[in-house]
Order: sequence, then C-alpha cells, then structure tokens
Amino acid sequence: MLKNDLFLKALKGETVARPPVWMMRQAGRYLPDFMALKAKYDFFTRCQTPELATAITIMPIDQVGPDAAILFSDILVVLQAMQIPVEMKDSVGPWIPNPIRTAADLQQVIVPDIDEHLGYVLDAVKMTQNALNERVPLIGFAGSPWTLLCYAVQGQGSKNFDIAKGFCFSQPELAHALLQKITDTTIAYLKAKVKAGVDAVQLFDSWGGLLSPEDYQIFSWPYLQQIVSALKDDAPVIVFGKGCWFALHEMGRSGAAALGVDWTCTARNARYLSGGQITLQGNFDPARLLSPIPDIQAGVKKMIDEFGKDKYIVNLGHGILPNIPVDHAKAFVDAVKAYTP
Amino acid sequence: MLKNDLFLKALKGETVARPPVWMMRQAGRYLPDFMALKAKYDFFTRCQTPELATAITIMPIDQVGPDAAILFSDILVVLQAMQIPVEMKDSVGPWIPNPIRTAADLQQVIVPDIDEHLGYVLDAVKMTQNALNERVPLIGFAGSPWTLLCYAVQGQGSKNFDIAKGFCFSQPELAHALLQKITDTTIAYLKAKVKAGVDAVQLFDSWGGLLSPEDYQIFSWPYLQQIVSALKDDAPVIVFGKGCWFALHEMGRSGAAALGVDWTCTARNARYLSGGQITLQGNFDPARLLSPIPDIQAGVKKMIDEFGKDKYIVNLGHGILPNIPVDHAKAFVDAVKAYTP
Repeated sequence: MLKNDLFLKALKGETVARPPVWMMRQAGRYLPDFMALKAKYDFFTRCQTPELATAITIMPIDQVGPDAAILFSDILVVLQAMQIPVEMKDSVGPWIPNPIRTAADLQQVIVPDIDEHLGYVLDAVKMTQNALNERVPLIGFAGSPWTLLCYAVQGQGSKNFDIAKGFCFSQPELAHALLQKITDTTIAYLKAKVKAGVDAVQLFDSWGGLLSPEDYQIFSWPYLQQIVSALKDDAPVIVFGKGCWFALHEMGRSGAAALGVDWTCTARNARYLSGGQITLQGNFDPARLLSPIPDIQAGVKKMIDEFGKDKYIVNLGHGILPNIPVDHAKAFVDAVKAYTP
Repeated sequence: MLKNDLFLKALKGETVARPPVWMMRQAGRYLPDFMALKAKYDFFTRCQTPELATAITIMPIDQVGPDAAILFSDILVVLQAMQIPVEMKDSVGPWIPNPIRTAADLQQVIVPDIDEHLGYVLDAVKMTQNALNERVPLIGFAGSPWTLLCYAVQGQGSKNFDIAKGFCFSQPELAHALLQKITDTTIAYLKAKVKAGVDAVQLFDSWGGLLSPEDYQIFSWPYLQQIVSALKDDAPVIVFGKGCWFALHEMGRSGAAALGVDWTCTARNARYLSGGQITLQGNFDPARLLSPIPDIQAGVKKMIDEFGKDKYIVNLGHGILPNIPVDHAKAFVDAVKAYTP
C-alpha cells in the first residue's frame, strides 16, 4: 500500500486535504547529484542502465520531496527501438543521422518487440519501485507520435520543425504511416510499463503547439486518442500538450484522467476549455522559480486558489530549468505542502 | 493618392471587395534576389543603407504582389541606437556582447535622438515611398519593449529567454526602468517614421507568448499600450503578439487599429477573444506554404471564409520561412486576389 497516494487520488478526482505536487524534469540538471552522474555517463547510458535510471529517479524524492516519482528516461528511446538511431550531440542535442523522409526510409522503421528492445526500461521500472518502497507512486511516460515524428523527420531539434511539417503537408500518406507505427509501438511500450509496475502514464506532446488547431486534429490528436483509449483501463493517463490550449476540449472528452496545461493558459481558461470536470495539472512558469522564495510561495498559493485544491495536481507548466537553485525547487514543493485555502 | 488602398481601408474597418494581403518577412530569405544582396552586404549594412533597404522592400512588391510593403529593417536597430551594441553572428543570430543585467549596465543605456541615431531608417522611408510611387501603402515597424528586453538581457536568441525572465522576476525595478527607456525610444522612433512617410506601423511582440497572462500584464502589455496610445492619432497601429492569444481582450480595447494573430488561434477564437469589432490580421501557418499549391489555394479560401472578408487582413501567422518556393508565396497572394465568398 502506498504511503502517499495523494497523486492517485487527484487523478481519480477524489477530495484531498491539499493537492499533490511533482515537477516535470524533476530528476534533472538542476540537481548537483544528477550533474555528477552526467559527468560520468553519457545520456543514453543513463537511460539504458536500470541502476542509473533508478538512482536518478529517486534523487528528487529524497532531496526535494514531491508526491510522485517519474521514471528517468527520454521520449526518444522509442525511436531508437524502432530502428531510427538517435545520438545526443554536445551543443546540438538530439541528433538523428538518418532522418525519415521517403518511403524507403519508412520501410526501415519497425514496430519493435518491447521486451527485446526496451527491456531496460521495464527493468528500471521494477528496480525503481523496489527502491521507492511504496513511498510515492511512479509515473511512466512517452512522447506523442507527432512529437516523435518531429524529431524523426527533422533530424534534430528546431524552432519550428519546418522540415517535419513540410513532410506532413506534402506527403501526408507517409506521415500517417509513420505516425501509426509510432502509435502502435507506444501503446505496446506503455502497456508493458504498466505491467512492469508504473502507477500512471503521461504523454508529452511537446511540439503539438506548432500545429494549427485544424492540423492538430489531423496529425497529432487522433494518435494520442488511440493511445489514451488503449491505455485508460490499464492505468490513469495524463495528456500534456505544450501550447495546446486549443485542443483542451477534445482532450477533456478523451478518457484521459488528467490534462497538463502550460503557464500561458490561466486556471480559468483551462477549466473552461477542458469542460470543467477533468483533473488538471500545471502550470507554474518554470522561469518563475528564479523569483525570490517569498514570491514563489505567494505564486503557489495564488495558483492553487485559482485552480482549486481538488481535481488538481500542482506542477510546472513545462520542465524545470537547469539554472533553478535546489532550494527554490524545494520552496515550490514545500509551499504546496503548506497550502491552506 | 494611393493606387491600392485596400490595406488602409481594412485598417479602418471599411467594406472591401476582397481582403488585402501581405506577408510578414515578405522581403526576406525566400527571394533569390534578396539572397544575392545578402551575399554581398552584411545584415546591418543592408539595414543602414537606405538604397539597399529600399531595393529589398520593393522586391516582393514587384515579384509577389502583396497589397502593402513593409520597410526592410530589424527590431534590434533600436537597441543599437540606445548604445546597446548588437552584432549578427553566423549560426548564432543576434549577439549582444555586453548584455544588460545590472544597474551599472542600465546606466549606459540612452534614450537616443532619433534623427542622429536612426536617421538612416527615416531616409529609407522617404526613398522607399518614392520608389513605391503610391502603388501600395508602406508599413513601418518596431519590436515590443518586452521582446527587445529579451535580447538586451539574454544577449542572444533563446528557446525560453530564461536569463531575461530571471532578470525581470528578481530585479523588477531594473526591468521596468529598461522597459521604459525602450518605450520612450520606440515612441519617438515610430513618430519619426510616420513623419517621414510610413502609412501604418506594426508592433512585433515576438516573445510575449513566453510570459504567463499575469506576467504579460506586468512586463509587456503596459508598455505596448503606452506606444499604441502615443501613436494611434498619428497612424493606424497593428499589434502582433506571437502566442499572445490570452491578451487579445486587452489588445482589442487598446486603440490599436488591428491585431495580428498566429495560426494556433482559430478565426472564431480570435474574433471572440478580441471582442469581435477590431480588424484582425493573420494567420496562415508559414509551414503550410510547403503544401502543394492546390492545398494552399483551398486553405486561403477557407481562412477568408472563416475570418470574413471585412475587418480582415490576410497574412501569415508569423514570418515566411526561408525554404518556401517563390511560386508558393505567389500562389498564396494570388489566391487572396481571386477570392470570392
């Protein structure tokens, strides 16, 4: 039995004394202990070694105290498993040496056996659950098919992912075939993660906000909906689309347990757009953690007052920034724990 | 007398046979003739030489045929005039060697005499108006104070402008002092541009969408409102805030003649959020110009049907991308000219 089940209660919409809190990228570069491991092991070694993934996942639980853990990994491990090699290049970031741009490229892409190609993630889930010892629930995650297509086609990060968008707009059949392969892989991957022991899953549509609402309904949402429908009876599903305020209506009716919102969408707009019934998660501006601690405390109080304490999970509106002082992150978490209406 | 005054009519909300069209960055890198000049003259030479700025401004009028010209320049020339040196570095973009981060840095920043420091822009306005010879109106532009602060403090382009935001959140008095200096300069600059002959002005808040709605009302909107209030009796003012759907309500009541919207905000949402009375400008996804020409034509028709032909200026939702074929840009403009309800 979980010692702290606030997060799962909020996902079910149950009444809580205070909302739960966690931070996207909480197991990340603002933590000195993470930086020490980063100096020793390269990016994918950290992802692919269950002992390292476990140690990194646990770090913020011990040091910052959120109400949920999220397994350390990366959305791009799914592309690697699909036979699309991904490297992590200094000062470039993700780098795909052979981006997918033709029918011949697509032919090479497989829907992999999860145990064979992503077994290390499943091992990390089991190892992390042992280490957590029921202290807090564990979240598993995946990127949205659209967001993974962005990297697979563009070949690297981009301000506007123009090559990826041009691919979709000029060769829509190929785009849909790639999106479906990613979707099939992601469903199998997340089902395996739930079986291995994660308590909830989150889908990250990091680049959904680059699409118009109409194109979002063509190239992103149908695939996210497939994943939500396939997973929702296995575990609660959280959908987070950065910049996707325009799709909160569809998301609210999808069967997802909760929706992430970024800081450009007020609590009032998010409740209105999502239909007012579903649990929401967010949306403190990550850069606002650079404010003096009293401002962080006041901001957290105001944010919870605006979202309401129920059907709400406190989080940032995107990943925590590398330059956030640990005591500011801790002040954020502690302010939630100290919340009184 | 202007031979084509569709653009000015739309800014006044007058009935038109079809909406006017222009494209942000229409005098830009998708034009082979622009690339030929780019190979010969560096970025600020092109901005600071009235003959070059004029030639570049006219290029798309001759080659693509929009209903308005926009003076070739850059938002960062205002920072240069304020004694904040700006360089354009290969593969980095804008580069500010001495970013503004302390009271001592701020002390060095001046509110310049416009004739002395930006006279070359005023000369370019006069020369361009001669060259245009009343064919279409000429737009002058400036960056928003918030967007200029982003560059002045961060020192270069950034995904999240975290240093600039941290500066505002931790040293708000300094931030407001810098924003006010930029505002005072921008008002004098735009008034001088109008006096030199531009027919309308557009304010670009390229990074407004990085702020929460609450912080937008602190660090961006009050300064834009000052500029609109100071200019609106001199010339029609267009306010374009990328990602700023959440501020359309305030913008709609500001005295601006029109509001730019990006492609994440549907026509319906933009009309609703802005109050339904003000002229809107936008919002074709720039990457959608990579679609086959028949799709571009259908998309333009659908967009005008949704915005309505009146109180509407057709544009992209952000600047045209460098990799757009010229015939696709021309197909976009021609589709507007061929519009019938």
